Amino acid sequence: MKTIQFLPDNVSIEVEEGENLLAAAARAGVYVNAYCGGDGVCGKCKVAVESGEVESGKARLKNDDYAAGLRLACQSRVKSDLVVRIPEAMGKDGKALKRKPAATRTISARSLDQLIGDWHLDPPVEKRFLKLDPPTMENNIPDLQRLMRAIRQDCHDCKEPTFDHPDLLKELPFTLREAGWQVTVILLKGRRAEEPARIIAVEPGDTTASLYGLAVDIGTTTVCGMLVDLNSGKIIAEASAYNDQISCGEDVISRIVYSQRGDGLRTLQGKVVRTINNIIETLCKTVIISPSDISYIMAAGNTIMSHLLLGLDPKFIREAPYVPTCSHFPLTKAAELGVLAHPSVRLFLYPAVASYVGGDIIAGVHACRMYKSPELTLFIDIGTNGEIVVGNEEWMVCAACSAGPAFEGGGIRHGMRANSGAIENFHIHPETLEPMIITIDRIKPCGICGSGLIAIVAELLNAGVIDPQGKFNRSLEHHRIRQGEDGWEYVLAWGKDALLGQDVAISEVDLDNLIRAKGAMYAGYQTLLESVGMDFADLDRVILAGNFGAYIDLERAITIGLLPDIPRERFFYLGNGSLLGCRVSLSDNQRFRERMLVSELVTNLELAENAQFMDHYMAALFLPHTNLSLFPTVAKTR
Amino acid sequence: MKTIQFLPDNVSIEVEEGENLLAAAARAGVYVNAYCGGDGVCGKCKVAVESGEVESGKARLKNDDYAAGLRLACQSRVKSDLVVRIPEAMGKDGKALKRKPAATRTISARSLDQLIGDWHLDPPVEKRFLKLDPPTMENNIPDLQRLMRAIRQDCHDCKEPTFDHPDLLKELPFTLREAGWQVTVILLKGRRAEEPARIIAVEPGDTTASLYGLAVDIGTTTVCGMLVDLNSGKIIAEASAYNDQISCGEDVISRIVYSQRGDGLRTLQGKVVRTINNIIETLCKTVIISPSDISYIMAAGNTIMSHLLLGLDPKFIREAPYVPTCSHFPLTKAAELGVLAHPSVRLFLYPAVASYVGGDIIAGVHACRMYKSPELTLFIDIGTNGEIVVGNEEWMVCAACSAGPAFEGGGIRHGMRANSGAIENFHIHPETLEPMIITIDRIKPCGICGSGLIAIVAELLNAGVIDPQGKFNRSLEHHRIRQGEDGWEYVLAWGKDALLGQDVAISEVDLDNLIRAKGAMYAGYQTLLESVGMDFADLDRVILAGNFGAYIDLERAITIGLLPDIPRERFFYLGNGSLLGCRVSLSDNQRFRERMLVSELVTNLELAENAQFMDHYMAALFLPHTNLSLFPTVAKTR
Repeated sequence: MKTIQFLPDNVSIEVEEGENLLAAAARAGVYVNAYCGGDGVCGKCKVAVESGEVESGKARLKNDDYAAGLRLACQSRVKSDLVVRIPEAMGKDGKALKRKPAATRTISARSLDQLIGDWHLDPPVEKRFLKLDPPTMENNIPDLQRLMRAIRQDCHDCKEPTFDHPDLLKELPFTLREAGWQVTVILLKGRRAEEPARIIAVEPGDTTASLYGLAVDIGTTTVCGMLVDLNSGKIIAEASAYNDQISCGEDVISRIVYSQRGDGLRTLQGKVVRTINNIIETLCKTVIISPSDISYIMAAGNTIMSHLLLGLDPKFIREAPYVPTCSHFPLTKAAELGVLAHPSVRLFLYPAVASYVGGDIIAGVHACRMYKSPELTLFIDIGTNGEIVVGNEEWMVCAACSAGPAFEGGGIRHGMRANSGAIENFHIHPETLEPMIITIDRIKPCGICGSGLIAIVAELLNAGVIDPQGKFNRSLEHHRIRQGEDGWEYVLAWGKDALLGQDVAISEVDLDNLIRAKGAMYAGYQTLLESVGMDFADLDRVILAGNFGAYIDLERAITIGLLPDIPRERFFYLGNGSLLGCRVSLSDNQRFRERMLVSELVTNLELAENAQFMDHYMAALFLPHTNLSLFPTVAKTR
Repeated sequence: MKTIQFLPDNVSIEVEEGENLLAAAARAGVYVNAYCGGDGVCGKCKVAVESGEVESGKARLKNDDYAAGLRLACQSRVKSDLVVRIPEAMGKDGKALKRKPAATRTISARSLDQLIGDWHLDPPVEKRFLKLDPPTMENNIPDLQRLMRAIRQDCHDCKEPTFDHPDLLKELPFTLREAGWQVTVILLKGRRAEEPARIIAVEPGDTTASLYGLAVDIGTTTVCGMLVDLNSGKIIAEASAYNDQISCGEDVISRIVYSQRGDGLRTLQGKVVRTINNIIETLCKTVIISPSDISYIMAAGNTIMSHLLLGLDPKFIREAPYVPTCSHFPLTKAAELGVLAHPSVRLFLYPAVASYVGGDIIAGVHACRMYKSPELTLFIDIGTNGEIVVGNEEWMVCAACSAGPAFEGGGIRHGMRANSGAIENFHIHPETLEPMIITIDRIKPCGICGSGLIAIVAELLNAGVIDPQGKFNRSLEHHRIRQGEDGWEYVLAWGKDALLGQDVAISEVDLDNLIRAKGAMYAGYQTLLESVGMDFADLDRVILAGNFGAYIDLERAITIGLLPDIPRERFFYLGNGSLLGCRVSLSDNQRFRERMLVSELVTNLELAENAQFMDHYMAALFLPHTNLSLFPTVAKTR
C-alpha cells in the first residue's frame, strides 16, 4: 500500500501500487478538474507531484510543465508514497477558489473473513480410490456388492452408500474390468449427516487428485462462476457473463412476461443454461480440465431465476398474492437441465424464502452467518429489487422492496450498467460547479452507473445545485444547467467530450426515479425493523451484499438517504454474497447443511400492500428524508 | 366337491363339479384305455356310470351302449357324486386283464394360506385427499409448501414427505388452481419405516377410491400380471403372455448370447417391455381403468430377466465366475424403462442372490415366509434352471443346478411347453402296455410337457418297459416299442391319432436327458443339505414353487427320483411364488419391507465346479437313484 497526501487539502489516502492517480483523488474526495472521464484528452487534470514517483507519459503536457513536475493525474500510476499538489483553480473573479474536500468513504473489505468465519475442507462430494479383489468362483458376489464392500472396508464407520441412476450401473461391470478392479468412486454426501452417501460415479484408476466444484451466482443480469479445487478448497478460476436471457427482458418481471409467450419458458431456460455452459467452458479452458471433471454445482439465484433454470413456470409469482411454485428446489441432475456436466453431477439451488426474496439472498445470509450471531444485523442487497433481511441467531425477517432499476441504470436516461465508460465517481467544484468525472476503464463517458448516480446526486445536493426534493435550483445561472427534453438537467459531459458524441446529463426525471428507489429501500428497513419492535439504533451491523456494495460510497449513500445514518464502523461489505455462499457450501459440508437452518429461520414480510411501508415510503421521498432527525450527521452539514 | 368311486379298482377321488371324467380317472391312477388324448375320436374310453349324473353327449356311442349307461369318459363332466365302473379289458388270451391302480398323488393347495400367512392391507403407496386453503397476501407460502403443510395437518405423526421429479413440480401450480385447491396426493412410502414418504403424483379432486397396483412375474417363457385393488387388497384381473424375447432364444443362455449382438440388449429390453405393456393393456381393459391409474408395479424375475428389463448387460453372468452387475436392483421409474405407466410410478424388482438364483426365487421365499419359521424347509423351483433354497428363520442357503430344459420340453424330441395338445398325464396298462393319454384341452396329442414326461417315465419304469438306467427292455415285443431315429422308443400316439399326423414317441435319448435333469436337481438338494450338515430326514417341509408344481404328480416324481422320498404330508405346493411374492408385497408394506431380510439371509452356493455336487450328480443318474436306500418307499414296490 502506498500513501498519497493531497495538498492543499491535506487529505491522505492509502492506495494500491499502480492505482490511477485521478481515481485515487476522487476516492479521497479531492476535486480535480477532469471532464473527459480519465481518457487523457481534456488535459485539465494537471497535478504537481512534489514528492515520490509516478509512472506517467508526457502526452498533452508542455515540456516546461513536465520538467516542472506537472503530470496528468488521469495518466499517472502510483509507484511510491506521494505528495501531490492540486493547482489552485481560478474563479471567474480571478481569485483562487475555496475548496473543501468532500466527505466520502468506501467500506473496506477488511472484515470479510470475520463475517464469513472459518470453514473446514469438507466438500459435499468426495473421491475414494479402491482396489477390489477380482471375483473368483468362491467369491462371485455381484459387481455392485463388491464395490460396496470395498467402500465399507475403506471407511468403517460409514453407512453403506446408495447407488445412483441405472446408466451408471450399466457401465459398472465394464469400468471395473477395464480398470483391472482399481477404481475411484465419487460419493455424494447425504443431505443430513445421518443419511447415507450416494455413489454418483465410478472412474477407472486413481483420480482422487482432481476433484472440482463449481459455484454459480445466477443473476438476472450477470451470471458469475467460480471453479473451486475441492482437494485444497482454493478458487482456481473465475468467470462471468451476461445472462443470455437479457434479450428477453431486462428485469425479472419482463422475463416472467416473456415466459408466458408460446415457447417462452423453454427459451428462457435454454438461455440461462447456455450462459452457464459458456462460463463452464471458459473456466475449464483456463485450468485445462474437462467439464465432466466438475463433481458438484452449487448455485443461487433469485426466485424467478431459480424457477426459470428448473423450467418451473413463474406465472403466479407475478400475480397477487405472489406465490412461487416452491421455495426449496429439488436437487437436480445438472445434465438433465442441459448443463454441460457429467450425467450424475448434482446442481444444488439455494432455497428461496418468497417470490421476491430468493436463494441469492439466502446464500448471502448463509455466507455471512448472521444466523449464528447474537448481533442484530441488517443485511441489504441493492439491485433492481432491493432485498432486506433483519435478524440474529434467534429470528430473521426479510422483505423485498420494488426499488426499481435506478441503481442498475434503469429509468435513468443516461443510465447504464457498470461497464466501460460508465461514470462511476463524480465530484463537483463547489464554486465553479464544474464536474470531475471518473469513468470505468478511464475512457470518455457514455453514461452513468449506480455508484456514479449516488455520487452525482450527493454532490449536486451538497453543492446546492438541487434541493432536497431533487429539483434544480432555478436561480443558478450556469452553462451546464439547462432545460432539456425531460425538463431541467445538469450536463455532466458535453458531446465533444463524450464517447458517443452526445451530451450526457442528469435530469429531474432521473432524480425523481432515484429518490423513489432509495425511498423504497429506506422504507423497507424501517418497516422490517418496526415489525420486530426495533429501530436503527438497535442495529449492531449493516451488511451490504451485491457487487454494487463494492463501489458504494458510504457517506454519499447516507447523504442521499439510501443507507441509514448510523456509526460508520457498523457497515460491512460482503461482495457477491450469493457466490460466496455457494463457495462456502462447496467447501464445507457442515456449513452447507446449515442452509436448512437459514431458510427455516427466515420469515417473509410482504410489503406490496403494507400500509406502514407506504407511509414510510412517502416520507422517504426526500433527500435524505423528510424527517431529518433520522439523519443527524447529514443534518449537521446543512 | 364331488366324490367319484372307480370300480373295480375301488379307488375314490374328490373332484370339482364339471371336472372331466377321463382326467379325473388319470389323476386317481385309474387306467382307462384312451389314446386320442381326450379328443373323443378314438371312442375307447367307455365307462359305465352306475350311480350319479354326468353331462355327456352321445357322440361315438351306439344307442344301446348309451341306454345301458355307458359314456365316453373324455366327453363327460362330473355333475354329482358318482360310481363309475371301468369295463374289464381283454388280454390277448381272451381273459380279463389284471389291473392295479397306479400310486399317484397330486399335492393339494389346501395349506397355501398357512404358508403365506396373514397380511394387513398396507400397500406401498397411499392416496390422501386434501383441501388446501387458497393463498392470500397474508399467507402466500409457495404452492409446494402449502401442499406439504396440508399433508402434515392430515397426518400428525408423519414426517414431511419429499417431492418427486421436477415435471411434477412443473404441473403443481396449475393442478392446484384448476382443482380449486382440492387434490389427491399419491404418497410412496419409504423403503424403511423411518424414511419419509415421497409425493409421486397430485391429482385434481378426490381420487382416493381408485388405487391400483400391478404384480408381474417376468418369466423367461411367460410373463404373468395381476392387477390388485389396493383399497381392498383384492385381485381384480389376471393376464399372462409369452415373453416376446422368446423369438431371440428359448432359454436364458441364448438370451445372453443374443444380447451380445449389435443392438441385442436394447432389442431384448424392448421386447420384455412390450410384453409387460400388452399385459397392462389387457388388464386395464378388463376392469376399465387407465394404465396411468396403476400406482405401483411390483415385479420379480430371474437375474437375467431382471438385467434385461433394466438394460443391464448380462455378459458376465454367462462367463465364469458368473458375476451379475448387481443383485439389489434400483427402484426405477417404470415409464423410464418404456413401461406404460404414469411417469412417477415406481417399478420394484425383487433382489436376486446370484446370477442363477434370481428375484423370482426370493419372491417365492418371501411369499412362503420360510425365513420366519423354525421349520427346516426345502424350497424348490423346477424349471430350465432348477433353483433350490434350504433354511429356516436363522439361515438360508441357495443354489442353482443347471438341470437343463427337459421339464419345459427342451432336449426332448417331442417335448413342448404346457400348451393345448401336450400330454400332461399318462398311464400304461400293466399287461397290454397300451397308453392312456390325457392332453391339455383334451385334443389330439402333439407333444409331451413336463408333467406328462414325469408320468410317462414313471409308468414305463413301473411297467418294466424301461430299466432304472432309462434303457428299453429289449426282450419285450410290442408294437409300440421300436427302434426309431434316435434309437429305441415307445410310441405314445400313432400319427393317425396325433394332432400333426406324425407319431409321438419317447426315446432313450429323451430319457437320458430327463435323467440328467432330475439327477441335477436331486444332487442339488443333497449338496445344499450337506453344506449345512443336514440330510433329508431333517426336512420339515418341501415347498414346490412354479407353475410346474401345480401339475406335478408327487408319487411319480418320487418314483423317478426328482423329489426326495420323505413323508408325503411334508410336501406343499406354492404355485407361482414369484407372482405371489409380488402380490403380498403390493398389499402389505410391512411384509414388503421384510424382503431386505430375505435377501440378506440367503447365501449362495455355487454348484458349477463343486466336487461334491458332481459326485451326487453321477450317483443320481439312475431311476430313482443308485442308492435305493434313499428311496425306501420306492424300493418297497420293486
